[in-house]
Amino acid sequence: MKVELEALAGLPEVAAGDDLAELIAAAEPRIENGDIVVVAQKIVSKAEGRAVDLATVLPGDAAVQLAQQTEKDPRLVQLILDESETVLRSRPGVIIVATRQGFVCANAGIDASNVPGDDSVLLLPEDSDASARRLRSRLSELSGARVGVVISDSFGRAWRIGQQDVAIGCAGLEPAQDLRGGSDREGRELTASIAASADEIASAANLSRAKTSGEPVVLVRGLADLVTVEDGPGATALIRARNEDFFR
Amino acid sequence: MKVELEALAGLPEVAAGDDLAELIAAAEPRIENGDIVVVAQKIVSKAEGRAVDLATVLPGDAAVQLAQQTEKDPRLVQLILDESETVLRSRPGVIIVATRQGFVCANAGIDASNVPGDDSVLLLPEDSDASARRLRSRLSELSGARVGVVISDSFGRAWRIGQQDVAIGCAGLEPAQDLRGGSDREGRELTASIAASADEIASAANLSRAKTSGEPVVLVRGLADLVTVEDGPGATALIRARNEDFFR
Repeated sequence: MKVELEALAGLPEVAAGDDLAELIAAAEPRIENGDIVVVAQKIVSKAEGRAVDLATVLPGDAAVQLAQQTEKDPRLVQLILDESETVLRSRPGVIIVATRQGFVCANAGIDASNVPGDDSVLLLPEDSDASARRLRSRLSELSGARVGVVISDSFGRAWRIGQQDVAIGCAGLEPAQDLRGGSDREGRELTASIAASADEIASAANLSRAKTSGEPVVLVRGLADLVTVEDGPGATALIRARNEDFFR
Repeated sequence: MKVELEALAGLPEVAAGDDLAELIAAAEPRIENGDIVVVAQKIVSKAEGRAVDLATVLPGDAAVQLAQQTEKDPRLVQLILDESETVLRSRPGVIIVATRQGFVCANAGIDASNVPGDDSVLLLPEDSDASARRLRSRLSELSGARVGVVISDSFGRAWRIGQQDVAIGCAGLEPAQDLRGGSDREGRELTASIAASADEIASAANLSRAKTSGEPVVLVRGLADLVTVEDGPGATALIRARNEDFFR
């Protein structure tokens, strides 16, 4: 089985209100039936107008206190708290939360710009699975192609160094493949249980992206078997239930 | 940038003592300069004779006790303890440890066969980075090609459902790319810090593998920039130091 990963070329800068699907459908290579389109969270958030000017944020007491402990901007911390359900860990420089959608990540996934004088930050999409479904439906409308859509972001991990791209939203593909009960070619039952395909697709796509993040959209070809007619359960299905999670 | 993932066809069953590099070099497609060769842990362990017959294992008191708590075979639990430095979490059906090499995973990465009457299990390689280095050197000898080698295994994760392939050993590539201090195309400093490339490569490779695990070796083409002259630090460099780990 051959799988190809290729970043779309020539996408323009994305601004609030842009029709992302239109930009993607017009870029090269053209999307085709069975492709999986992996879109970086950053441009989805931009198109959805999720940028916030820190100058407009008034931090409350809890934010001021956590900002002191973690040596962060209290206005950014206020946004992190607004986007979160629980703060799991914090120390100077680090705040790890469970977001309202259930993702465990640093800073509630908020990207801060590092341009001096630019105080805008970018929140995650409100509901990344809904974003993926809208994008998929519009891509089908514009191109006629039935594709899967993954919205990816770079998250840190427990136990291991470095970030890896995961799926924070998806539509039109099974996010996980349940292999329990299957057997290998010698007839042995497979011990591997559930493969987190949507996360593996996000990780794979990141490899073909220029590291300057100038290439936010990647086509994954050769995995048409994973593309479904229905939108499916979305990447939320990859979140481990809190009461089954040893590591919160 | 285009990246291709393709599983090697026609590899025979691997037995203890086999020269894995010879089997890989003889398979199609042939390996070339700049390829990254991703090899499933299972066949590395088999070739290195890491299968153990449970009938030969005498469980001690600690193993018997933990086996009771977790409802597992006490002989398997003894092997898990032998391969581990610490047991991090346990409950019925689950034992999560830090292995002697430092990997946090279920059952110390030991694969149990599910054939009734077959009591053999397969341990991780003693030192997967050393295995990757040997494989790389022998591949170079046999084919003349300078490649990177990744040894992959499927690990569960904190917070998210399903398993994802990670690198438990590597040689000839930088396991992580430090992007701190880089800038994006608008001149903004990148906030993304360190990309766990070796893990993303392992995850990507798994996508092109038939799910019956009949295809243990995958070539990754198009990432020659990541292939290094030196063997490099190996996948051990991706293990987070215990005192910097919030989630143990």
